[in-house]
Amino acid sequence: MKILNVKTKPPYQILIGENILPILTEDLSTNQKHGKIAIISDSKVEKLYGEKILEILLEKGLKAEIFSFPEGEESKNINTVVELARSMLQRGYDRKDLIVALGGGVVGDIAGFLASIYLRGIPYVQVPTTLLSQVDSSVGGKTGVDLPEGKNLLGTFYQPTKVYIDVKFLNSLPLIELKNGLAEVIKYGCILKRGLFNFLKKLGKEIYKLNSAHFEYIIFQSVATKAKIVTLDEKEAGLRRVLNFGHTLGHALEAISNYKVPHGMAVAVGMLIEAKLSEILRVNEEPLYKPIKNLLQSLEIPWRISQLDLKLESEQLLSLISKDKKVWKGLLTIVLLKRIGKYHFLENPPTEALLEAIDFCY
Amino acid sequence: MKILNVKTKPPYQILIGENILPILTEDLSTNQKHGKIAIISDSKVEKLYGEKILEILLEKGLKAEIFSFPEGEESKNINTVVELARSMLQRGYDRKDLIVALGGGVVGDIAGFLASIYLRGIPYVQVPTTLLSQVDSSVGGKTGVDLPEGKNLLGTFYQPTKVYIDVKFLNSLPLIELKNGLAEVIKYGCILKRGLFNFLKKLGKEIYKLNSAHFEYIIFQSVATKAKIVTLDEKEAGLRRVLNFGHTLGHALEAISNYKVPHGMAVAVGMLIEAKLSEILRVNEEPLYKPIKNLLQSLEIPWRISQLDLKLESEQLLSLISKDKKVWKGLLTIVLLKRIGKYHFLENPPTEALLEAIDFCY
Repeated sequence: MKILNVKTKPPYQILIGENILPILTEDLSTNQKHGKIAIISDSKVEKLYGEKILEILLEKGLKAEIFSFPEGEESKNINTVVELARSMLQRGYDRKDLIVALGGGVVGDIAGFLASIYLRGIPYVQVPTTLLSQVDSSVGGKTGVDLPEGKNLLGTFYQPTKVYIDVKFLNSLPLIELKNGLAEVIKYGCILKRGLFNFLKKLGKEIYKLNSAHFEYIIFQSVATKAKIVTLDEKEAGLRRVLNFGHTLGHALEAISNYKVPHGMAVAVGMLIEAKLSEILRVNEEPLYKPIKNLLQSLEIPWRISQLDLKLESEQLLSLISKDKKVWKGLLTIVLLKRIGKYHFLENPPTEALLEAIDFCY
Repeated sequence: MKILNVKTKPPYQILIGENILPILTEDLSTNQKHGKIAIISDSKVEKLYGEKILEILLEKGLKAEIFSFPEGEESKNINTVVELARSMLQRGYDRKDLIVALGGGVVGDIAGFLASIYLRGIPYVQVPTTLLSQVDSSVGGKTGVDLPEGKNLLGTFYQPTKVYIDVKFLNSLPLIELKNGLAEVIKYGCILKRGLFNFLKKLGKEIYKLNSAHFEYIIFQSVATKAKIVTLDEKEAGLRRVLNFGHTLGHALEAISNYKVPHGMAVAVGMLIEAKLSEILRVNEEPLYKPIKNLLQSLEIPWRISQLDLKLESEQLLSLISKDKKVWKGLLTIVLLKRIGKYHFLENPPTEALLEAIDFCY
């Protein structure tokens, strides 16, 4: 087991390993600062793990219930949050009770948002069950729901009191979901962790044998990297933007597909376009496009636009990217690379270079 | 003009006086850290003040719009917040823009909640227009909306960047709303500010002549008292409970009336019951019931249950009070008085004494 101390205010711990679930149930039964336990989950994870965990908690004499909602991004709206809150109120949950977020990114976003606004905030712990939520949303405190106007438009920054990452959850994860998470892991490698990048390169398809020690290592490396970045920059200006490598283009590709292309696949292709852009603009000190392409290819992750199931014009992509501008104080900051493991910020990249990179990666 | 520095994290200023509105519009036009301005208001205040303020801001060349909702407590729900958020999104408001909460308690609660969750939080300033919101909700950072299960069940703790209290707003305030606020002012007098209590006693009905200097004084004394309490106790355990003087009984009376009795009236009667209880339990070092009753009477504020428009059995009141328990870690803490200006906490007051106090105040 590995333990990461995240130095936010207040600080919290992330436990990573292959027997974390028993530690969770043990923690919940010995640490009696909280009252009842509300396990927030979705219909799928409830059946896979929720019911079993509930049984263990009840056997230990704890008061616990599952509150679940239908699986999928469509559930990520304010109505789901309100319905969960009302159910919890009707069951008498108050400020000293605890929320356990059990599931992937959607569950984490919803349960975290709920915890942050229920009676003006109650404590919650995260138990992310997908690789993507383990390496990404377990750090940073972002919660939120979608509106018809776009994704994550209502939400809060709210830290969990503890995060439990059990790599055994990955055994039940569809291959596409593993790849979805691996794209983010590769991102950490590209921007700051050359060692992590090389580790994945060396393993190649071996990674899909799901060796626990391998995942303990890559998850720890990923969350440690993200934790370092977000604690240096709690409110998303400045440094935190490095996390956007592959995402400026990736988000645009996702949006064009109407969110049918999985996040990780869009980010994978986005990383390659931004790596190519680094080369076109001669920011790079070594080849970038080729090693990243080779890694994605060896892991059988899509790496060119034509491998994604969508139709687009390069100009459409450009216009979506420029809409993203507002978030960064009127400037489009794109994350480029100098080397594998070394990022480089560039503001307002020239349109022709962007178009060239997009066309190259078609 | 008086200025109060509230030492929360981050800290903010409260300006109190009779020419505060021009300072607001001046601040907004000279301090250009923010982009556009979204004035959040209700239908009534929009007409009384909103349109005028908007005109001034537009004349100064600022980008501003009013987003309003129907006046009244019925609007204090999540749908209002979502509708406001969607309107702002459609008008392109982003993280560097600013919300101005212009109105009474409902506007403050809704606009503050909206500001705290819109794109995970944007800055907002408060411009409270009722005496109650000026002396109460402008300090403490509480935001929130009601659910069918009860009041203020979803919300956040979120501090404004500045509060502008213009006493001239009181000129357009119905008498009942003035009394509503005065009850809270008397509360501050009772628990910590004997001088404030005596000031009101000396003024008597003169207060309704709305002398600006008088209100500058009583509002400053009130918010300074509340600010001291909440900064010593940011998350509502411990000391902050003194603010509940008159409210344990007051909330129960409000609930029984189905919230038809105004908050201040219920609190006024609640204070008298709790003062009487202090005497019955011999916690007091001087008479309490009589001076508080005399003050309420001289200000023509209801002071006995029969003056409120409701029907109740004492037992009904008791059962409602015990439901309130959960908030205080399983113990009902009631705030009593030793003297005017000196509070005293008591846990789980004896039922017979409570019944006696209630019956005495019928």
